[in-house]
Amino acid sequence: MIAPEAATKLATLLGTRFVTSDADRAQHGRNETYYPDTPPDAVAYPETTEEVSQIVRICAAHHCPVVAVGAATSLEGQHLATQGGVSLDMNRMNRVLAVNDEDLNVVVQPGLTRVALNEELRSTGLFFPVDPGADASLGGMTATRASGTTAVRYGTMRDNVLAMEAVMADGSIIRTGSKARKSSTGYDLAHLLVGSEGTLGIITELTLRLQGIPESTLAATCRFENVEDAVNCVILTIQSGLPMARIELLDHMMVRGFNAYANAGLPEKPHLFLEFHGTPTGTAEQAQSFREIADDFGATNWEQATTTEDRTALWAMRHKAHYASAALGKGKHLWPTDVCVPISQLATAVVQAQDDAVRHGLTSTIVGHVGDGNFHAGICVDPNDADEMARAESFSKALAETALRLGGTVSGEHGIGLGKQKYMQAEHGTALPFMRAIKAALDPQNILNPGKLLPPGD
Amino acid sequence: MIAPEAATKLATLLGTRFVTSDADRAQHGRNETYYPDTPPDAVAYPETTEEVSQIVRICAAHHCPVVAVGAATSLEGQHLATQGGVSLDMNRMNRVLAVNDEDLNVVVQPGLTRVALNEELRSTGLFFPVDPGADASLGGMTATRASGTTAVRYGTMRDNVLAMEAVMADGSIIRTGSKARKSSTGYDLAHLLVGSEGTLGIITELTLRLQGIPESTLAATCRFENVEDAVNCVILTIQSGLPMARIELLDHMMVRGFNAYANAGLPEKPHLFLEFHGTPTGTAEQAQSFREIADDFGATNWEQATTTEDRTALWAMRHKAHYASAALGKGKHLWPTDVCVPISQLATAVVQAQDDAVRHGLTSTIVGHVGDGNFHAGICVDPNDADEMARAESFSKALAETALRLGGTVSGEHGIGLGKQKYMQAEHGTALPFMRAIKAALDPQNILNPGKLLPPGD
Repeated sequence: MIAPEAATKLATLLGTRFVTSDADRAQHGRNETYYPDTPPDAVAYPETTEEVSQIVRICAAHHCPVVAVGAATSLEGQHLATQGGVSLDMNRMNRVLAVNDEDLNVVVQPGLTRVALNEELRSTGLFFPVDPGADASLGGMTATRASGTTAVRYGTMRDNVLAMEAVMADGSIIRTGSKARKSSTGYDLAHLLVGSEGTLGIITELTLRLQGIPESTLAATCRFENVEDAVNCVILTIQSGLPMARIELLDHMMVRGFNAYANAGLPEKPHLFLEFHGTPTGTAEQAQSFREIADDFGATNWEQATTTEDRTALWAMRHKAHYASAALGKGKHLWPTDVCVPISQLATAVVQAQDDAVRHGLTSTIVGHVGDGNFHAGICVDPNDADEMARAESFSKALAETALRLGGTVSGEHGIGLGKQKYMQAEHGTALPFMRAIKAALDPQNILNPGKLLPPGD
Repeated sequence: MIAPEAATKLATLLGTRFVTSDADRAQHGRNETYYPDTPPDAVAYPETTEEVSQIVRICAAHHCPVVAVGAATSLEGQHLATQGGVSLDMNRMNRVLAVNDEDLNVVVQPGLTRVALNEELRSTGLFFPVDPGADASLGGMTATRASGTTAVRYGTMRDNVLAMEAVMADGSIIRTGSKARKSSTGYDLAHLLVGSEGTLGIITELTLRLQGIPESTLAATCRFENVEDAVNCVILTIQSGLPMARIELLDHMMVRGFNAYANAGLPEKPHLFLEFHGTPTGTAEQAQSFREIADDFGATNWEQATTTEDRTALWAMRHKAHYASAALGKGKHLWPTDVCVPISQLATAVVQAQDDAVRHGLTSTIVGHVGDGNFHAGICVDPNDADEMARAESFSKALAETALRLGGTVSGEHGIGLGKQKYMQAEHGTALPFMRAIKAALDPQNILNPGKLLPPGD
């Protein structure tokens, strides 16, 4: 609940941009996956950093939760106001503030989406590489430490955020990080905020690294008889140091999903979707080196996407994995998972996940950014089927335990949000109290996205 | 001062590895630059993480400072126990614990140096790329967020630390980060500790990323008529996206230093020292692209180091820049500086630094990891010459202000330690109280390297 006095102050500050209508609240209570709808008490639409600061000050004075939201494509319920309060809709703060092409960086507001940014950059010869599939907001991507298909080459949001402006829990506006490519001056607050899911501060501006559009881009697909061969090909490729720009695994179930959802017309075998960036000579050399490795694992049906259109179509299809996985469930919701393991353990982890899905009687795809050791099992669930939900929960737990047993992590890129808090103790152990200490130090009233990331305390 | 009771407990714990002799104390009170000798009250030589934990517990119980030290090559006095207490000498914890060649990572103890690590890795075909010049300990490099000549290609310590074990201020042993290549699970404590200069925790184990030794390595040097041409060549090279492995600037004064110190026999003109990594075709293509850019800036005397010996000699000379700069001062100490600016501002910053040195009547070299926009003016000073020290201080201040004015940072890689605290407010402004809040939350007694990194509080 918002205290009436707080609501009055917020309405005075924002006018019609402070909304308590059922429609707006309902819209902000939805999510892409299986979490129940949880509308906030109100929605605020700030247009400036100063307004964000004022909103947080008002909320701080009245112990009111503030939950930032961008494109709302988060997959672990990060943007849901589960303890009520204000949904801080950042989508009006969506401008490109400066393209510093000479320094290969760009300054943006957090509500801008990655696709919109790349459209703005089109004439510069530069691009922003991080690609989680969804057209997420850059603030949300930062807050969840997103990555995606190109992280194997260009890194995650952690690697691509240079600096930021943020509003802290007391309404202070800070700037942290530097437009220089590196800095060694004090605690790295910028990268502490990356991945903090809106629980330590609200991002109001970002300086992001850009890359030159490669002179040559070569995309291709190939097919394997079984998933072990596909994954072992990936492992050897990465170990060989081949600078892959993208190397994505689709298991036979994921291919079935693409056939159902997008008429992909592919044989239901494991596939790798690949991309090489460099000079024309370089990409040809890389592709040849890859094919020599792939041949040893029985790869067939090598197909290059020779035109830009073919390449775009290939990755557009890949980006529909979420919906294509759900399509196998005929109207069910998708329970996404997201583990990341050391590359040497990838075949073990993928095969175990496939076996576990069958054992649990679940329909599940596997798709992944396997060059990083990161993959997703996408489980079709009916949230009203308690038995199926219990089996999905059990499968998800087994997958997390497998990842930790193999030296990996329970989330490669989706974050913790609501759904993975139960694994925080197992993954972080004695480090968890120090995360709590940081949260308590930076947000002593626990108003910033309360109930997320950290499991309930002792 | 160490409370006698604490000293008794530490002696009981460590036996002869707890030392209060003048010789050991004096040795641990020295530094590479201009800070006065400040011996600790005692030196402890732990051999295990458990011992580090016990030492910290004892010190915590008696409010005794604990200052970790490795190779003691830090350049801002980070390892000096300026508030007394125990110098925690990590050099006996110097083993390689696991080479995970399949996962391209290695687990090491913090006292291991980078050169020793690369010697251990020699048979694996892998190497650890971060190269600050000095044969620093890997724990120290992590604690100061070091980088060096290869950061332009392989990143800084921030990018190359995957996970760590650390002892916190209450003696807790934590593990943070993951052996997976990426993770999105909670606050990034590992990278908060990177660059924290021993003020938030004591690093007791590190998991570091490794790189495959490139199939082909091509090193070269070239010469320019003036420093603007050299720097503008660097700027265009970086903006062109050429994947330089090393691109180092030496101004004419630095060349004079190498001539004096190492009989380099080079004309006293600005030089670039370069390295290209890749396939044989790739490095040749990169070198050709670079030369086309360099030609436009009047580069001459292109010389390739064709043999491994030539290449090693080239970088060995470069790594002596600290001593070669000091050599110009005929027995003086070196006052190193370390700014990093957006690449577009590099020429402005370098020329300003040269002019300012002359204006201050100082002998100063400039050498830098210019691909990152990072450079060092190395000033020869006599710490007993108050006037010269004041001029050095004034120059250093002007340089820091120039860096901030140009959107850069007062330290690219040396860190804050003692000497740069005075710029923390200017660089971080309203973010500084949140750094203090983190320090207070994680080290409430302020026993971990007190008096470093954060300026004295309000």
